[in-house]
Amino acid sequence: MNNSPKKLRIGIAGLGTVGRGVYEILQKDRELITSRANCLIEVVGVSAKSPKDFIDKKIKFYSNPLAMAEDKNIDVIVELIGGVGVAKDLILQSLKNSKKVVTANKALLAEHGAEIALALEKYQGVILYEASVAGANPIIKALREGFSANEIKEIYAILNGTCNFILTKMLDEKQEYFVTLTEAQKLGYAEADPTFDVEGIDSAHKIVILSSLACATLPNFKETHIEGISKLSIQDLSIAFELGYKIKLLGIFKNYGNEIQQSVYPALILKNEKIAQVDGSYNSILTLGNNCEFNMMIGRGAGGLTTGSAVVADLIDIASNRENNLLFNAKFTDLKTVKIADLSLRLGKYFLSFVISKDQANDKNFIEKYFNNIFKIEKIIYKKIDENDFLCALITNQIIEKKLFGSIANIDSTQIKNFKFIRVEETKF
Amino acid sequence: MNNSPKKLRIGIAGLGTVGRGVYEILQKDRELITSRANCLIEVVGVSAKSPKDFIDKKIKFYSNPLAMAEDKNIDVIVELIGGVGVAKDLILQSLKNSKKVVTANKALLAEHGAEIALALEKYQGVILYEASVAGANPIIKALREGFSANEIKEIYAILNGTCNFILTKMLDEKQEYFVTLTEAQKLGYAEADPTFDVEGIDSAHKIVILSSLACATLPNFKETHIEGISKLSIQDLSIAFELGYKIKLLGIFKNYGNEIQQSVYPALILKNEKIAQVDGSYNSILTLGNNCEFNMMIGRGAGGLTTGSAVVADLIDIASNRENNLLFNAKFTDLKTVKIADLSLRLGKYFLSFVISKDQANDKNFIEKYFNNIFKIEKIIYKKIDENDFLCALITNQIIEKKLFGSIANIDSTQIKNFKFIRVEETKF
Repeated sequence: MNNSPKKLRIGIAGLGTVGRGVYEILQKDRELITSRANCLIEVVGVSAKSPKDFIDKKIKFYSNPLAMAEDKNIDVIVELIGGVGVAKDLILQSLKNSKKVVTANKALLAEHGAEIALALEKYQGVILYEASVAGANPIIKALREGFSANEIKEIYAILNGTCNFILTKMLDEKQEYFVTLTEAQKLGYAEADPTFDVEGIDSAHKIVILSSLACATLPNFKETHIEGISKLSIQDLSIAFELGYKIKLLGIFKNYGNEIQQSVYPALILKNEKIAQVDGSYNSILTLGNNCEFNMMIGRGAGGLTTGSAVVADLIDIASNRENNLLFNAKFTDLKTVKIADLSLRLGKYFLSFVISKDQANDKNFIEKYFNNIFKIEKIIYKKIDENDFLCALITNQIIEKKLFGSIANIDSTQIKNFKFIRVEETKF
Repeated sequence: MNNSPKKLRIGIAGLGTVGRGVYEILQKDRELITSRANCLIEVVGVSAKSPKDFIDKKIKFYSNPLAMAEDKNIDVIVELIGGVGVAKDLILQSLKNSKKVVTANKALLAEHGAEIALALEKYQGVILYEASVAGANPIIKALREGFSANEIKEIYAILNGTCNFILTKMLDEKQEYFVTLTEAQKLGYAEADPTFDVEGIDSAHKIVILSSLACATLPNFKETHIEGISKLSIQDLSIAFELGYKIKLLGIFKNYGNEIQQSVYPALILKNEKIAQVDGSYNSILTLGNNCEFNMMIGRGAGGLTTGSAVVADLIDIASNRENNLLFNAKFTDLKTVKIADLSLRLGKYFLSFVISKDQANDKNFIEKYFNNIFKIEKIIYKKIDENDFLCALITNQIIEKKLFGSIANIDSTQIKNFKFIRVEETKF
């Protein structure tokens, strides 16, 4: 039986969307939370940029979040500042002072995971971070606990709701990227500076965490291959759809034994595969384990209450002494250094699109010959652009990426114009 | 930090598909499991119907599983016998003797959950039971932990792979129920006596467990409304499909505040709703929480390694002192008695099909008039059967079930023949 404290005293650092969500849940659902935690989870301190963001006289306000790490009346620090600056200092200082930590900070875990894991072990601490990846989907807990009896072979994940919203809108409403991005910003789905989301960095932080959990390795963000969605056009999405595919920004992990694939890029997925059907601002994680086979989760990835409820679930775990102290599924000393596979050695299918002349389009052997028969064409579509030009889009058979790239390098841009390629992923689910 | 034992000694009671799966995983994935558990999980005893089922001289064989509960060398009893007889005695005796318990026994938890919860509290014990529901989907852990900061509003779940396999095949291959059932039996997807699966009892056990977790209530299996799939025909599935729907056997929980819906029945679901797209032998659970909104999990529900890996995950949790001792999300004394809503008060849409004459089919107002205008027709299809008879299938607007039933009771079977109704569920996901 747990020796639960009668009260768990928490300090919330950062009162943005998630911080306010946590506070709101703890107020409005107090009875439920107290029953689940078998103790009262009480906010005793908060820290935010300005005291104006938060006025409740019963709760101590800290202009400097680091001061919370020194407060003996606080049991758990909820770090929702984000980023790798003061957030890191706060977490390290909290661990040092025997405070438990709940965080939603994917950047910190992905970029400084080794340092955090080392401190966690040194101070025999606890860090829970369900809210860092995919909000309503308890994928961190699943990879730490639910799937713990599995070697994880593959993960395909839609980890950024902003990108998924934009790609869905572009296809459904034939609306170009920048128009859709502006709409997403108006709806609050995209930040004023959307770079982090649309260039795949946020997704990369998340896949790095999932990947570290999947094979108990030190997070390796630096070597992660990252591409975003800002170069995709309506035409790419529409013609891929005609060929039978959706384009999704995927975080991908593949376990090849000695090395792994760990990357973020837009990929074509057959329409009838389930992850292709996850539209709008939803997130989804498809996991393949050696024993459990496929598991897929779908749910919202953001929002104050959604993500806030993941933070509060972690607090309930702490209140219940149900703690996980293997940050990435192994003790610090057992965390392996991951070898990331060279993406140019990827064996897979590719979507190619380019503009050719009418004569070339009429010559059925032109394309394969032009590319020196390095691939076979599985599907092809020609679209007449004008009297002289045809848009051609095709799906290759499985080839090694660098072989394709070698061939692309030799393209004569007067013959094959506007060349573009996107990887095809086959999840088989 | 955990004070993990260096070794966790387990006794496996029952060596059917799951028991053998657990044993196989612990052998073949020993290194992974030891690393995740931070200790060796060692099988020290097994019990099965016949010693022939299991020969490993290092492991003690018990012809009587209850004797394992008395063995001081066993820390955890893994109960995979199933049913509510000796399995119950074994679990109660194990708790009494301070042994922790991992079980896959949905029948026992659903039908005798109160007794088990009482014993758990009395002996301050631990029972984990991830393997009892939906194999590869960590839904028990999600409802106990991942979604713990949510009031669960609705659950729609495909909980029986056999039924889902049969319904998928019937629709895809236009193959009648009994033919498909025989095929499922040959493939090992259905038992020799399939009653438990096809009549919805297995699904009912599972939805009762999910429902108890969802609102922290004592399991109430007896009052659960249960219908199976054995009365469904190809025609039902095909014509529902033409109307835009799939038919799935759903376990349903709806939280109305003072009372709940807790039931199992075949239901029409719009094709574009995600749970309608879960085909074959897969299970799926769609959960609606007040804070996290929708979450959906999809994965296999059965199979030795799939379900076995859920059992081993529970063992790893125990080895890591990461235990959950609120069996149904509240202390025994706090578990509420659930009031199950009268299904006849259900407000929802209905699929009706029946045979009428050519004249009646030609009279556009006939049906609504015949049923005294108690419903409006949202969609309707007529199929000519022969010169005189037409099959009519329709979807009503939302009406109260007993109003419909009152009307059905008055049907003149010489006028409206082969009347059939199936509920329509709108998951909005």
